[in-house]
Amino acid sequence: MTGRRPSLAVVGATGVIGGVMLQILSEHADIWGEVRLVASPRAAGTKLVVRGEETEVLPLSEDVFDGVDVALFLVPDEVSAQWGPVAAGRGAVVVDDSAAFRMDDDVPLVVPEINPHAARVRPRGIVASPSCTTLSLIVAVGALHAEFGLRELIVSSYQAVSGEGRDGVAVLREQLALVAGTELGTRPGDVRRAMGDGDRSPFAAPVALNVVPWAGTDAGDGWSSEELAIRGECRKVLGLPGLKVTATCVYVPVVAAHSMSVHARFENEVSVARAHEVLATAPGVVLFDSPGAGDFPTPSDVVGTDPAWVGRVRQSMDDPHAVDMFICADNLRKGAALNVAQIAESVAGEFSRT
Amino acid sequence: MTGRRPSLAVVGATGVIGGVMLQILSEHADIWGEVRLVASPRAAGTKLVVRGEETEVLPLSEDVFDGVDVALFLVPDEVSAQWGPVAAGRGAVVVDDSAAFRMDDDVPLVVPEINPHAARVRPRGIVASPSCTTLSLIVAVGALHAEFGLRELIVSSYQAVSGEGRDGVAVLREQLALVAGTELGTRPGDVRRAMGDGDRSPFAAPVALNVVPWAGTDAGDGWSSEELAIRGECRKVLGLPGLKVTATCVYVPVVAAHSMSVHARFENEVSVARAHEVLATAPGVVLFDSPGAGDFPTPSDVVGTDPAWVGRVRQSMDDPHAVDMFICADNLRKGAALNVAQIAESVAGEFSRT
Repeated sequence: MTGRRPSLAVVGATGVIGGVMLQILSEHADIWGEVRLVASPRAAGTKLVVRGEETEVLPLSEDVFDGVDVALFLVPDEVSAQWGPVAAGRGAVVVDDSAAFRMDDDVPLVVPEINPHAARVRPRGIVASPSCTTLSLIVAVGALHAEFGLRELIVSSYQAVSGEGRDGVAVLREQLALVAGTELGTRPGDVRRAMGDGDRSPFAAPVALNVVPWAGTDAGDGWSSEELAIRGECRKVLGLPGLKVTATCVYVPVVAAHSMSVHARFENEVSVARAHEVLATAPGVVLFDSPGAGDFPTPSDVVGTDPAWVGRVRQSMDDPHAVDMFICADNLRKGAALNVAQIAESVAGEFSRT
Repeated sequence: MTGRRPSLAVVGATGVIGGVMLQILSEHADIWGEVRLVASPRAAGTKLVVRGEETEVLPLSEDVFDGVDVALFLVPDEVSAQWGPVAAGRGAVVVDDSAAFRMDDDVPLVVPEINPHAARVRPRGIVASPSCTTLSLIVAVGALHAEFGLRELIVSSYQAVSGEGRDGVAVLREQLALVAGTELGTRPGDVRRAMGDGDRSPFAAPVALNVVPWAGTDAGDGWSSEELAIRGECRKVLGLPGLKVTATCVYVPVVAAHSMSVHARFENEVSVARAHEVLATAPGVVLFDSPGAGDFPTPSDVVGTDPAWVGRVRQSMDDPHAVDMFICADNLRKGAALNVAQIAESVAGEFSRT
């Protein structure tokens, strides 16, 4: 590597995804110069360990981006919307994990295994990373698309509560503590009565001993925002504006790792054997598919790992162009911090070559 | 009602579904003469309350069916396979909840809201009730089929552990007690390590803080037996041998009530407004679909209730002939005991008219 080491800012360093990002920065090859940790003024001042060094968290401000080459935003949409352009205006390349810019025509939406080149063209100085639900399925689906030509996706999610950050995990743990050792869950409404609806809960219904078929906000015509996000983001990342995509998003009482039941229809015929070959060699994918031997991915198997794990690959009995599969990926790693880190590492190459 | 009251045997009275059946017999209009409770010799001798009376459980034998008009079998497949024909041979009409006869050409497979007439033609003296997964979706789907002409179903399940009887519920509760109050669920494999794979567990992986994409046995080509059961049973009940059906079956840590994410394609165009009209008036269905107001069904809302609850009805953005929806139904009531009771009550009408 020639040239200087680029400097990095991690905005949202004290959050759940920020914590995973600090782990990743400590694990991956160290290509960065200064690493500046940033959080809201309320959380600033605490010290966190990154790359083995205790580092004080700085309060978010315009000046904090001075001299920063790459700024990672791991914060809520509204914080990214306000501060992302500020950091870009100060000359940093912004890599944003929020939904604020994902569908902006002047912001590339990047999954390095699929469209790494897209990160090079960024009219607003911002690169966006897809939602955790899109990321949990798109690496595997993208590999199959390259081989068979994707035409349609019909997906149902089994989403982990950490998709709603610390509050999501705390609410599940509180609700589980209430029901553990009780007979709750066998009479109508008793789980909801015992748990209340919890002002603090990010979920529209109890999530312990339950599933909640609603994620995000009301996007009209009965769709949730997360369901339309999967549609828009898959189309944008894969460069397929006419791709048919139908998603149903459901929270399940799992701490971390999203699962997706995927029905994918292609232009060409797809056999399980050929799909296995493609998935077994695809970057970022682990094929784990021998259900008779108990080999299929579950959230508890994949949490803390980087790849998307794919199993239950079956050719449709009605359509030789379609396969069904079950995919699990850690929503905090590939679904968030890891994909942002991968984008940042590819952008860093531009600096090291200057 | 004229004529005599038919006599009833409940085989498997001491099981989970048997317990729900005794509740239903006590709640519904009392049309039965003698009600004989039957179980394996091991469980016989205990006393259970039905219709307000303590009743001793008799051991399963050939003689126990003497004088029985209708025999309900709420037992494992192999017990039904052996004893169903014995009861039929003694003159009882057998209504079987197991998988033993569901796909037998000489055994009708009946959902009273959809094909009640089919129960009248029973060459083997046996009527079968579909699996709990099929039953959780078919009443709503059947109502839409009658109006719009069903062509294809693509479904993903969120199945409750009581689908595996008492062992399923016990294993979930044990695993929940292990993880409640711990940090388990956030590191790779830790749930599996803490719980072991449990000789007694009917699940192929831990089910607390997890989802398990496998139900039943290996049916070949990557499919589980439960996935193919949904396909075969929907075709048979709806009388659509060419219906396209793809199912992915997944257990979730819910005690009771199965949920299904359903993508249904019809011959005719389907608007949400028309689908709502059909579902709102369909017998055995509750429409609960105002997600902006928090109104969508979850397992904890529907457990203990009779109907299938339907929400999240959306017209496909890619195909005006397709709708997506989310359906929840109690797997022990409509999914098992209730459907068997409904079949038995329709058969009882034959006796009361003699």
